[in-house]
Amino acid sequence: MIDPSLNELVTKVLGYGKSMLEMPFSGIPSFFRTNLCDDWREIDIALVGVPSDAGLSHRPGARYGPQAMRAQSGLIRYINPFTKVIPYELARVGDVGDVPIENQVNLDPLIEEIFTYYQRLHAAGVVPITAGGDHSITYPILKALGDGEPLALIHFDSHHDTVAPMRGTKFHHGAPFRNAVLDGAIDPKRTVQVGIRDPYQEASRPFAVESGMTIIDMGEIQERGIKAAVEKTREVIGDRPTYISFDIDALDPAYAPGTGTPVVGGLTSREAMQFLQGLRGLNLIGGDVVEVSPPFDAAGMTALAGAQIMFEILCLAAEGFALRSER
Amino acid sequence: MIDPSLNELVTKVLGYGKSMLEMPFSGIPSFFRTNLCDDWREIDIALVGVPSDAGLSHRPGARYGPQAMRAQSGLIRYINPFTKVIPYELARVGDVGDVPIENQVNLDPLIEEIFTYYQRLHAAGVVPITAGGDHSITYPILKALGDGEPLALIHFDSHHDTVAPMRGTKFHHGAPFRNAVLDGAIDPKRTVQVGIRDPYQEASRPFAVESGMTIIDMGEIQERGIKAAVEKTREVIGDRPTYISFDIDALDPAYAPGTGTPVVGGLTSREAMQFLQGLRGLNLIGGDVVEVSPPFDAAGMTALAGAQIMFEILCLAAEGFALRSER
Amino acid sequence: MIDPSLNELVTKVLGYGKSMLEMPFSGIPSFFRTNLCDDWREIDIALVGVPSDAGLSHRPGARYGPQAMRAQSGLIRYINPFTKVIPYELARVGDVGDVPIENQVNLDPLIEEIFTYYQRLHAAGVVPITAGGDHSITYPILKALGDGEPLALIHFDSHHDTVAPMRGTKFHHGAPFRNAVLDGAIDPKRTVQVGIRDPYQEASRPFAVESGMTIIDMGEIQERGIKAAVEKTREVIGDRPTYISFDIDALDPAYAPGTGTPVVGGLTSREAMQFLQGLRGLNLIGGDVVEVSPPFDAAGMTALAGAQIMFEILCLAAEGFALRSER
Amino acid sequence: MIDPSLNELVTKVLGYGKSMLEMPFSGIPSFFRTNLCDDWREIDIALVGVPSDAGLSHRPGARYGPQAMRAQSGLIRYINPFTKVIPYELARVGDVGDVPIENQVNLDPLIEEIFTYYQRLHAAGVVPITAGGDHSITYPILKALGDGEPLALIHFDSHHDTVAPMRGTKFHHGAPFRNAVLDGAIDPKRTVQVGIRDPYQEASRPFAVESGMTIIDMGEIQERGIKAAVEKTREVIGDRPTYISFDIDALDPAYAPGTGTPVVGGLTSREAMQFLQGLRGLNLIGGDVVEVSPPFDAAGMTALAGAQIMFEILCLAAEGFALRSER
Amino acid sequence: MIDPSLNELVTKVLGYGKSMLEMPFSGIPSFFRTNLCDDWREIDIALVGVPSDAGLSHRPGARYGPQAMRAQSGLIRYINPFTKVIPYELARVGDVGDVPIENQVNLDPLIEEIFTYYQRLHAAGVVPITAGGDHSITYPILKALGDGEPLALIHFDSHHDTVAPMRGTKFHHGAPFRNAVLDGAIDPKRTVQVGIRDPYQEASRPFAVESGMTIIDMGEIQERGIKAAVEKTREVIGDRPTYISFDIDALDPAYAPGTGTPVVGGLTSREAMQFLQGLRGLNLIGGDVVEVSPPFDAAGMTALAGAQIMFEILCLAAEGFALRSER
Amino acid sequence: MIDPSLNELVTKVLGYGKSMLEMPFSGIPSFFRTNLCDDWREIDIALVGVPSDAGLSHRPGARYGPQAMRAQSGLIRYINPFTKVIPYELARVGDVGDVPIENQVNLDPLIEEIFTYYQRLHAAGVVPITAGGDHSITYPILKALGDGEPLALIHFDSHHDTVAPMRGTKFHHGAPFRNAVLDGAIDPKRTVQVGIRDPYQEASRPFAVESGMTIIDMGEIQERGIKAAVEKTREVIGDRPTYISFDIDALDPAYAPGTGTPVVGGLTSREAMQFLQGLRGLNLIGGDVVEVSPPFDAAGMTALAGAQIMFEILCLAAEGFALRSER
Repeated sequence: MIDPSLNELVTKVLGYGKSMLEMPFSGIPSFFRTNLCDDWREIDIALVGVPSDAGLSHRPGARYGPQAMRAQSGLIRYINPFTKVIPYELARVGDVGDVPIENQVNLDPLIEEIFTYYQRLHAAGVVPITAGGDHSITYPILKALGDGEPLALIHFDSHHDTVAPMRGTKFHHGAPFRNAVLDGAIDPKRTVQVGIRDPYQEASRPFAVESGMTIIDMGEIQERGIKAAVEKTREVIGDRPTYISFDIDALDPAYAPGTGTPVVGGLTSREAMQFLQGLRGLNLIGGDVVEVSPPFDAAGMTALAGAQIMFEILCLAAEGFALRSER
Repeated sequence: MIDPSLNELVTKVLGYGKSMLEMPFSGIPSFFRTNLCDDWREIDIALVGVPSDAGLSHRPGARYGPQAMRAQSGLIRYINPFTKVIPYELARVGDVGDVPIENQVNLDPLIEEIFTYYQRLHAAGVVPITAGGDHSITYPILKALGDGEPLALIHFDSHHDTVAPMRGTKFHHGAPFRNAVLDGAIDPKRTVQVGIRDPYQEASRPFAVESGMTIIDMGEIQERGIKAAVEKTREVIGDRPTYISFDIDALDPAYAPGTGTPVVGGLTSREAMQFLQGLRGLNLIGGDVVEVSPPFDAAGMTALAGAQIMFEILCLAAEGFALRSER
Repeated sequence: MIDPSLNELVTKVLGYGKSMLEMPFSGIPSFFRTNLCDDWREIDIALVGVPSDAGLSHRPGARYGPQAMRAQSGLIRYINPFTKVIPYELARVGDVGDVPIENQVNLDPLIEEIFTYYQRLHAAGVVPITAGGDHSITYPILKALGDGEPLALIHFDSHHDTVAPMRGTKFHHGAPFRNAVLDGAIDPKRTVQVGIRDPYQEASRPFAVESGMTIIDMGEIQERGIKAAVEKTREVIGDRPTYISFDIDALDPAYAPGTGTPVVGGLTSREAMQFLQGLRGLNLIGGDVVEVSPPFDAAGMTALAGAQIMFEILCLAAEGFALRSER
Repeated sequence: MIDPSLNELVTKVLGYGKSMLEMPFSGIPSFFRTNLCDDWREIDIALVGVPSDAGLSHRPGARYGPQAMRAQSGLIRYINPFTKVIPYELARVGDVGDVPIENQVNLDPLIEEIFTYYQRLHAAGVVPITAGGDHSITYPILKALGDGEPLALIHFDSHHDTVAPMRGTKFHHGAPFRNAVLDGAIDPKRTVQVGIRDPYQEASRPFAVESGMTIIDMGEIQERGIKAAVEKTREVIGDRPTYISFDIDALDPAYAPGTGTPVVGGLTSREAMQFLQGLRGLNLIGGDVVEVSPPFDAAGMTALAGAQIMFEILCLAAEGFALRSER
Repeated sequence: MIDPSLNELVTKVLGYGKSMLEMPFSGIPSFFRTNLCDDWREIDIALVGVPSDAGLSHRPGARYGPQAMRAQSGLIRYINPFTKVIPYELARVGDVGDVPIENQVNLDPLIEEIFTYYQRLHAAGVVPITAGGDHSITYPILKALGDGEPLALIHFDSHHDTVAPMRGTKFHHGAPFRNAVLDGAIDPKRTVQVGIRDPYQEASRPFAVESGMTIIDMGEIQERGIKAAVEKTREVIGDRPTYISFDIDALDPAYAPGTGTPVVGGLTSREAMQFLQGLRGLNLIGGDVVEVSPPFDAAGMTALAGAQIMFEILCLAAEGFALRSER
Repeated sequence: MIDPSLNELVTKVLGYGKSMLEMPFSGIPSFFRTNLCDDWREIDIALVGVPSDAGLSHRPGARYGPQAMRAQSGLIRYINPFTKVIPYELARVGDVGDVPIENQVNLDPLIEEIFTYYQRLHAAGVVPITAGGDHSITYPILKALGDGEPLALIHFDSHHDTVAPMRGTKFHHGAPFRNAVLDGAIDPKRTVQVGIRDPYQEASRPFAVESGMTIIDMGEIQERGIKAAVEKTREVIGDRPTYISFDIDALDPAYAPGTGTPVVGGLTSREAMQFLQGLRGLNLIGGDVVEVSPPFDAAGMTALAGAQIMFEILCLAAEGFALRSER
């Protein structure tokens, strides 16, 4: 009763992962139903979870982000319906599980733990695509991925995340990119911040501006549109090794209510996807989606949007990997 | 204390249905508070529920779709605020209740039951506007409504719904339009698919393309806008007897989280309404809204959007009926 | 460990209110964490709650609107991320609590209570920014704020709210602007209604049209955009003392599901903010956000949007106050 | 494939109402899927909704009580699983819809409307079982049902509901039984209050005590158990024509979170059912379940509990009717 | 800083499963964080999911039961806080994943698939503890586990589940135990039904009674208590190989709102646990928890209760296994 | 229209706090609507919030506990419906707001901050009743309240909370009572743990047992009842200065789903209240309710239960204060 072409397709898709065709309610929910992977030599791109919200100042819950994004990612799977990219044809991809966290309630040593993990992953030659966790996790990742030279960065967010140390720590979730600049992990001249509408900006904007970051405020996007913003971004980034960090609060709360510090007036999902799809061909060496907070979500829509963004980044990373491999 | 014009208005509106002015929390929630109707000779257009999700592969719950859309439709009622159409002035409209279903857990005979019901309705000369239920219900409806010649179809969805038989049945909710083409119930050359961004498209897109359907992907809408898409659609459809099938997952999850297989990056409600309002004057002979899944909804917003779409289709159907009557 | 500039900033921000830097989950949630204020002589602009839904015909719950908007406003605070306005630098702002209501279940004397309260506030020279409550509260406010001459009004809503008396009262939440016109509290020639898509419009639109109000339907916004609508509005309003009344159902249900009479096809939050930001320089003497209904909300997104709109109005009011002070 | 006895059973059950065997998600949700009834001469017992929360002082939403209890009652149907009573074998039962309410926002004339409706129902010889609505609706019902002599009353509640007039009205939902006593509609000496733990009792308890009501506090039930309470109740009531009014907040919030004024420490559902089942043989002439507030409910559990309590009262009423008929 | 005894404990606990000490929000959520197991030779007891609700007549969603119970089971882990049993010390336990289901929308072949899977598991000498899925899954399990002689059965439920074939199938979720009796898979004389309060009992009770099952209605438990019920059960069961099937709707909706056919007036969690703990020493050869329906749950409490019941059954099964091993 | 006695009552009740009679949806939600208090000399008992969940290992959110309990406490107010105690007649009570927290993401200095605050409060002679926050906050409170001699403690919980240091800190929420014993803040011989059913007990129970604590497991309560448990508790405690710490997870998840580490099989609300009411006459010098986690709550029932427990403790503390004052 099944036609032969469907059988062929099924065979092909199962080649991407043994549970790639399971229903979303069945089996172990890995990211996009890729294979669970313990041996990093088997993969080029690792899907990783960092279940920590220790750096969060407002509404907690991002510790449940990886679990929720894994669950919702079962509705997404293998092909990008817009660009037709199938990342698994371009690179070997696997779910390596969550970063093991010992110092759960102590932000400082926790940051160190994350750094060590990604350093090992990077040393193994694996490109990490991460589901957070709050935004404090991005700084140790950036620090681990650079190879001597600062990375380029495309940062989607409503906030600048360049606040000075406060409340006893420099590692809080409002500071990762300040830390990364001061450490030389990213190059602020090759950093673009997209979607900004920061209600605490007096504490953060001066550093972003003065360090030389390119800021594309929501007002600018509203006025000039996504395409212009993409073009500007590509000009700043060039072909440098680039990391994408996507704070889900870049999206409007109607699209992503489940987050720690929502700000009204953000991107739609379609704008975010259009922006990311406009970045094809960049030399992407990693990325993350952070600040998905399932306890504050409605109907799983934030985790679903987060998983979709993660898939877009995966597609970009797979293309970037393929490009580098061809050289 | 009430001014005379309000009294006149109330009298007029009550003429449309005896509970048309009841509060949404009062009385029996029929569709748009039209009269419940047992005698099909009293109506030109029937509002019907098909409470089945037997064909659903992912998140269940569409069996509660008719009940939830009836409840939310109490907020909508009688006049289209955009086009000013009052459908009840153009045709006699009633809520005929739900299709009685005997074979609830057996998809194949259930499809036959639905077919038989709509065949009788069609024989009675009644135009059906249906609230599903999952998308598997559309195939038997289409099969019942054709009079020898294949219908034209406008199909809003994120998926093509032209997948081959699988998991033991050809009737699953991913296949209605393949079945309808193969049966000659619809004319693929007069079929337009709108809003497509199908994550399982390798199993479905080839059939849609090869059979000659016109596909307006979300990417095309994003790029060229609703008006161009409407124009293209009208060219394909012409003045053929036309059916509209609206899978609520054509909308973005921010607008319609409560559905079985949500896909990020879809239409806004306004785009959907603008599109439908652009179809005025078509020779509409039926329509449906499917895949509203109340257990996965947030704050009833999906059921409300579904009811609004159903009302737009009702307005088109009433205008179509009036046009045919005038001839 | 904290850099000096952050300390300066903190000092400055705390100057706006003693809990302005508290976390959203800590302390007493006043509007935007401004100071609670019992002595009206200390402020120029009062943030007020009117916890009443006695005038509501459909889904109740707006009585919880002020509490929910206060809670969510803790995520917003002091600077407008689009216009960079800090209202507290332009005017003294405080939260004066809720209007005390004695006649909770009797709409008519309740309307009188509200009127008396705002009359006192107005006599004290304080500009009120109000969080409702259902829309019936706006009529007594308008009546209290006029100084002999009718006010100009910008009214965001899906409904006209100019319905004649019915169900035993003229004060129901569908009638405030009819009452205000008939009383001479507002000038219909200087009244603009924005976002209208009224499903009960046959009972309301004739009065709006015949009295000379300017109506910017959603269809017009869809067609011509926000900027054109802003321009038209400014032309009608001129430099007259102006009140802004924002019914949260002007927003689409995807952005504001938690309201009494949602209507599909409304404004996005961004459009609303863009519109309001386009009104800078008007002579604003008061405003309100009404019909936020927390029991029907999802994930607090409606209350958050309502608080953001309220902040936009506060910024306009502070600028208006500063302009008047300069003269 | 169906065995003959099942067919017989189905035939019998359908005799109780034409949709008695429909699935809960299908068809029009009348109370327990009994027939909708416009002609009161066809029934002995009427199931009625009173969708009003105009008398409520705290959390609103009881206006949605009838709709929610109708929906959940589809899970209950025809036989009492504890007593094996099938009420439809003892009396003709139908759903007469909701009391039409004109004065929705004015409590005083609304009370009059309810009174008039029940007076007509009573004159037609029909026993009413009502789903509220807030507790203010019980006073006009009691007033309508008495035939010259005061009724006996069994009142389940956490509150006494005998508060003096306040906030401009004597009809608020905290006062029905004071009003009923003062009017001679009930006999306080034949009145039992069950489950009381009134946090506002200083305003209500003196009247209850002084008028001679029998009060069975929660503390007493905790101490002495349900059986003793039932016995005491039967002694007070005797064989007098009796009305049962069940405020759902008599149940603990774990069993009934969706109510206007929940009080921790109440009855379990089982205790409530055991109590009601202990009242078999009383001369019941009416009853109600009030204060179910769906917007504050969790997973529909309160509406389900309310529908179950309503069914228990229906069973008692049917037995009472049969007893009176036999005489 | 960690004391030595804690280190010892950690070592011991990790011996039960490599993620036994992970936080509930971290890592892959297997049942009770036991190891995922592909090789059945490594285990004595298998924890299995059957994600199907194809047999459900009312509220769907049980297909998400295994995923939700896995997630909540992360709060439970390794020791029974009442009996102090650590099942992993008595038997080798692993999570074998979900039964792969091909015929998802066709109940009859699906029943066959389940049967085949459990037949293989049984042949491998593994005791299955299953998380459903709806109750239709229990019949094929029972059929697979018997070794020629009918099993004894303890069945917790509000319904008898012995309804005749209807709606075109004998396999629906209201019939598993009728099928099992007719097939000789269970011995009705050694079958106890606990917690029964079946609102459809006229279709089911005659078979249960006439076949000789022992029925412990909720009324009896209410009257005589759990201990008497346990004693009665043990007498009927004796030392026969026994299966426990626990329909979560045996619990009251306050404890388990998330289920397909809730019935008010059921067991508390404590009563259920007390009952199960009273069954220690039985010769348990399998068990299941079914009808957990996450889309209708509130705050995950039903899935948590389901996981706890599953853990109690696991403890009984481990003790049963140890007893048999000792012989 | 108001009777004189009601006026007297209102006057009296307003004497307890100026918003004591406000509706729950109106005004600033202090605990039980007592007055906000900045000057500690005005009160004998302080109601305090500690909005921190920095010590939580599982589900976060307790930082929102104080806000949610304040909101729900508006349904409770001034008289204990069981014991008839009005605490405000026995002591001066006020809401002193939340403990200001600087080191939000660093548990160790945060513990010190809490200690310092309560030390000041204690030095001011004020009895603190606290709403947490996770259970890690209780240790610094206990440490601050002792005057040289160890306190007696009654500890309601499902867990022992005597785990050794782990994950880099001794202050985590599973360790407060171990720390308090080792510090001499409490006397383990005068410590009673109630409701225990600890799934991690191998790490905690040995310390509790060996230090000499009295443990009343849930099994014992199930077997012997509340009264016996109360008696045993009173014997252990005697007339020593006593603190009550109530972890809301002592309640069953049906009564308190919104908590960090729920354990099935706990106390009902009625049992908890009966227990606490059985402790009248103790020399209570402080108490807390912790681990209410609003993001995981359903319909606010956990926060409502938490507020009720807090009120019971307040009544005990007021009686204790009055007793001490009389001496």
